[in-house]
Amino acid sequence: MSEQDWKALCAERKQRQLDLIPKEWTITLPPDSQRNVLDVPRTCGLLTARELDITDTVNVAILLDNLRTGQWTSVEVTTAFYKRAIIAQQLTNCLTEIFIERALARAQEVDDYLKIHGKPIGPLHGLPISLKDQFCIKGMETIMGYAGWIGRVADRDSVLVELLYECGAVPFVRTNVPQTLMWGETYNHVFGRTTNPFNRYMAPGGSSGGEGALVALHGSPLGVGTDIGGSIRIPSAFCGLYGLRPSYDRLPYCNAVNAMEGQETISSVLGPMTNSLEGVKIFTKAIIDARPWRKDPLAVRKEWSVREYALGDHGEGGKMCFAVMWDDGLVKPHPPLVRAMEVAKKALQAAGHTVIDWENHRHLEIFENGQRIFVADDAQDLLNDCALSGEPLIQSMSPETDAHEYALDEPLIRTIVGERRHLSAYELWELHKQKRALRKSHLDHWEATAANTGTGRPVDAIISPAAAYAACPHGCNSDFFYTELCNFLDYTASVFPVTTVDKELDTRVAPHTFHNHEDEAVYKLYDPELWHGMPVNLQLIGRTQEEEGVIGMTEVLDKALKAFKQAEGQ
Amino acid sequence: MSEQDWKALCAERKQRQLDLIPKEWTITLPPDSQRNVLDVPRTCGLLTARELDITDTVNVAILLDNLRTGQWTSVEVTTAFYKRAIIAQQLTNCLTEIFIERALARAQEVDDYLKIHGKPIGPLHGLPISLKDQFCIKGMETIMGYAGWIGRVADRDSVLVELLYECGAVPFVRTNVPQTLMWGETYNHVFGRTTNPFNRYMAPGGSSGGEGALVALHGSPLGVGTDIGGSIRIPSAFCGLYGLRPSYDRLPYCNAVNAMEGQETISSVLGPMTNSLEGVKIFTKAIIDARPWRKDPLAVRKEWSVREYALGDHGEGGKMCFAVMWDDGLVKPHPPLVRAMEVAKKALQAAGHTVIDWENHRHLEIFENGQRIFVADDAQDLLNDCALSGEPLIQSMSPETDAHEYALDEPLIRTIVGERRHLSAYELWELHKQKRALRKSHLDHWEATAANTGTGRPVDAIISPAAAYAACPHGCNSDFFYTELCNFLDYTASVFPVTTVDKELDTRVAPHTFHNHEDEAVYKLYDPELWHGMPVNLQLIGRTQEEEGVIGMTEVLDKALKAFKQAEGQ
Repeated sequence: MSEQDWKALCAERKQRQLDLIPKEWTITLPPDSQRNVLDVPRTCGLLTARELDITDTVNVAILLDNLRTGQWTSVEVTTAFYKRAIIAQQLTNCLTEIFIERALARAQEVDDYLKIHGKPIGPLHGLPISLKDQFCIKGMETIMGYAGWIGRVADRDSVLVELLYECGAVPFVRTNVPQTLMWGETYNHVFGRTTNPFNRYMAPGGSSGGEGALVALHGSPLGVGTDIGGSIRIPSAFCGLYGLRPSYDRLPYCNAVNAMEGQETISSVLGPMTNSLEGVKIFTKAIIDARPWRKDPLAVRKEWSVREYALGDHGEGGKMCFAVMWDDGLVKPHPPLVRAMEVAKKALQAAGHTVIDWENHRHLEIFENGQRIFVADDAQDLLNDCALSGEPLIQSMSPETDAHEYALDEPLIRTIVGERRHLSAYELWELHKQKRALRKSHLDHWEATAANTGTGRPVDAIISPAAAYAACPHGCNSDFFYTELCNFLDYTASVFPVTTVDKELDTRVAPHTFHNHEDEAVYKLYDPELWHGMPVNLQLIGRTQEEEGVIGMTEVLDKALKAFKQAEGQ
Repeated sequence: MSEQDWKALCAERKQRQLDLIPKEWTITLPPDSQRNVLDVPRTCGLLTARELDITDTVNVAILLDNLRTGQWTSVEVTTAFYKRAIIAQQLTNCLTEIFIERALARAQEVDDYLKIHGKPIGPLHGLPISLKDQFCIKGMETIMGYAGWIGRVADRDSVLVELLYECGAVPFVRTNVPQTLMWGETYNHVFGRTTNPFNRYMAPGGSSGGEGALVALHGSPLGVGTDIGGSIRIPSAFCGLYGLRPSYDRLPYCNAVNAMEGQETISSVLGPMTNSLEGVKIFTKAIIDARPWRKDPLAVRKEWSVREYALGDHGEGGKMCFAVMWDDGLVKPHPPLVRAMEVAKKALQAAGHTVIDWENHRHLEIFENGQRIFVADDAQDLLNDCALSGEPLIQSMSPETDAHEYALDEPLIRTIVGERRHLSAYELWELHKQKRALRKSHLDHWEATAANTGTGRPVDAIISPAAAYAACPHGCNSDFFYTELCNFLDYTASVFPVTTVDKELDTRVAPHTFHNHEDEAVYKLYDPELWHGMPVNLQLIGRTQEEEGVIGMTEVLDKALKAFKQAEGQ
């Protein structure tokens, strides 16, 4: 297909999307120069007071209570969130598939069920849930950011969608992704670029960036993203949300589409993105309780562990020992992240826990091994999908119309990995073997911390940034190792909001001895004025298949942070 | 290395092994023509009456009770089994590493612990355990059947060995394997060929064939094998033992050596081989209770499930529905296997369960996909290990000195897979993707049986042969799909003894329409006279990561078989 043709195809498809927006739901747009648009849903006049009440109920447990008791119907809750999602779309371009009628029909079905049976369908009864553009819904296109996938209609639901139906949920929109999914930002040729509602000059993160922007604007109470290198945690962090990256195959990925399918060494995983930690727990537990191994042959046959959630492996949540990773040794975090870690440390100490420094272990080797696996096929899979339409493989997330001085000329990976080439099966197996040895080495390193914790146990969890920056301008998100570390080692990790950037507190600091040229570029990127007001999240890293424990520890930390801030009068 | 040199190296190493056999433990050998040697340990005069009592205690629970209470010391139990293992070695050539002093020192340590602390070290207190020649023990060679690995001394214990020590066990011998491990028989250039003690003209199976022969002769109460295509179940079946093939990574493989390390699509797993079903449960539970994920980054973080063992997913063991796979569609089983399945069916029905026919689903595709993955590197890994010494890659298990008419000229795989070549990483990923789809398809097929079981649940377990024959002559074990099916789909599977071949009952049957030329060759192989007296085992196939349930269901079946045989007066 010629450039003219695939561009026309994309434009036509985009127009079809825009045509689905009800005329009466269009709003008077703020000027493009207005960077922060968080308040627009409240001020634009489209939502009724009740709809604002509903959509501003960030605690998913309360939403579910009101749905379960019939205080709110699913139709009105879904309508409210749909309207707000459409507002979010107009502000940040966060959606892909819009299917209002179908979602409302489902909501009606759920309401009818409650009326007839006097009990909810399941633990997510009536809850609208947004889905990243990978979770196929029967009869609908799944485009996943490829021009060549336009018109590809799913002949079955992904297993996640099947389970959401069983749980009583209402899938109601799908959200934008970058082409290939292998970016920490969100831009593709079909649906265009998604922006960050805290500052539209900034990226919402990626690859689940549509979810990030949508949920931050309360256009969805809970979204489902996927994560192969940070794609749940980066947008959750950039948009101030709670998120969870479960371990490989704890939640069912079956029949969702993906890039590089068949690459099973560093598996992409799915997880929740939401404004409340309750939402993270409720979603994760609901999906596990639905016994996903009935439908996904790879899903771990492990029931929700009450014992692990009660921190049975962590002294029942009594005195715990956390370790802070101040710097991963590849890219030093910006000042707001450092302050957030200091806050978290003080909050944990105030709650009676111990906090020590994390000692990094073989990060550069882990980084290199993971990157080599990602490019083992020399991008053949990605190029094949581009070739379907003739669209080029996107080489940068930098907006042509909005170039800036910070872009890196040479990402770190090129320096380390050297020349890329398509590996043989044997060479790939050698990388697997190396990965396994690195995981063993890192596990032993973690276990050995028992000598320094004072609890008799190894470090309970690691606290780290999810990225070296609190969001970043479009085109600048070049480093993912804070999150990738967990993908490569398969550690369960949550992200959670701590504070927002404060230009008075988070001033520039003197340059350190740079780890590498990328570290230098990231250092130079920081500008307190530009970042002021952006959310600052952190990451809590636990063990492989320790979802329950990680959620439990994040609750402890979240509570400690809230108590600490209250005590500090913040 | 020249042929002369590597052969000399192997001969020297073999002599070193023989030199480790205490002169006073050598026995007067039966003539080579004596095929069944099961009675020799009892008749040769080396073992005392008490040692015979100890080693004939096949129930591992009773052995452990006697060790725990101090009725038998670990030193005397280990000595008794060691003597019997050395007898087994002289009869079937089943051992690799012999380390009597070291094992007895460990046994003494265990005895001392009990004396000092008044309690056992752990759930396997004092129990001698034999290990396939992959489980490294610090300071000892791990040769794994490669001439080029002679002199390769382990600098650490494998994780399994670490956990066995924690559990109080006494690793006491290592056992023979085929070169490359990718055979269902047991022959290599270093330690030679292992034979089947039921009939030394027959193979003991493989690749855990040393364990099979050793445990069948009661030279070990429990051995640990590994299984990537049937390597636990085939020798367990050929030697009349109980065995378990757990799912990928349920038990810790870390720091054990292996062939094709890094091939993580069809993972090799470890599991027990023993004369009692109690042993299977005790070993599996002990290792899981030791929390292997502390030491193996790949080990599934799933505690032993009391609920699943109590058949919580199978109607609490009330009325269940089993399905019999009479023929896998690739190779039809010999008459003794068919009779064994009939016996199992009647026994289950007599116990109140339902038995239906299993409908095969896409076996040929599953077979082809698995085989293609196994040869994705065109044997580069195996050739590399051969090249270390110059020994050739073994192409047949047929003994040169004992050729027979049944050998196949062309294994099925060649016909199906066509020309082999080294795949690219992308091509390998395509196979992974295909495998995933086949697993999903097969899972859906299994789930859909709920319509035909009468229990409201899908088929609880499948009953099938573990091989088309009850053992086979050396060089004839060419088909592994009855077991490979579980490796490819990652289904948990046990094997258990049902009966022995009876030339009066298991007469030749008229030829069927052959599935392929291999099926024809296997059909022609059968000779009631030759097979008379060989053990006939079956396989019970459950779901992925359903170790507890599979053990529980095997107990139900084992009990039903014993009750049925008693009722039939057998």
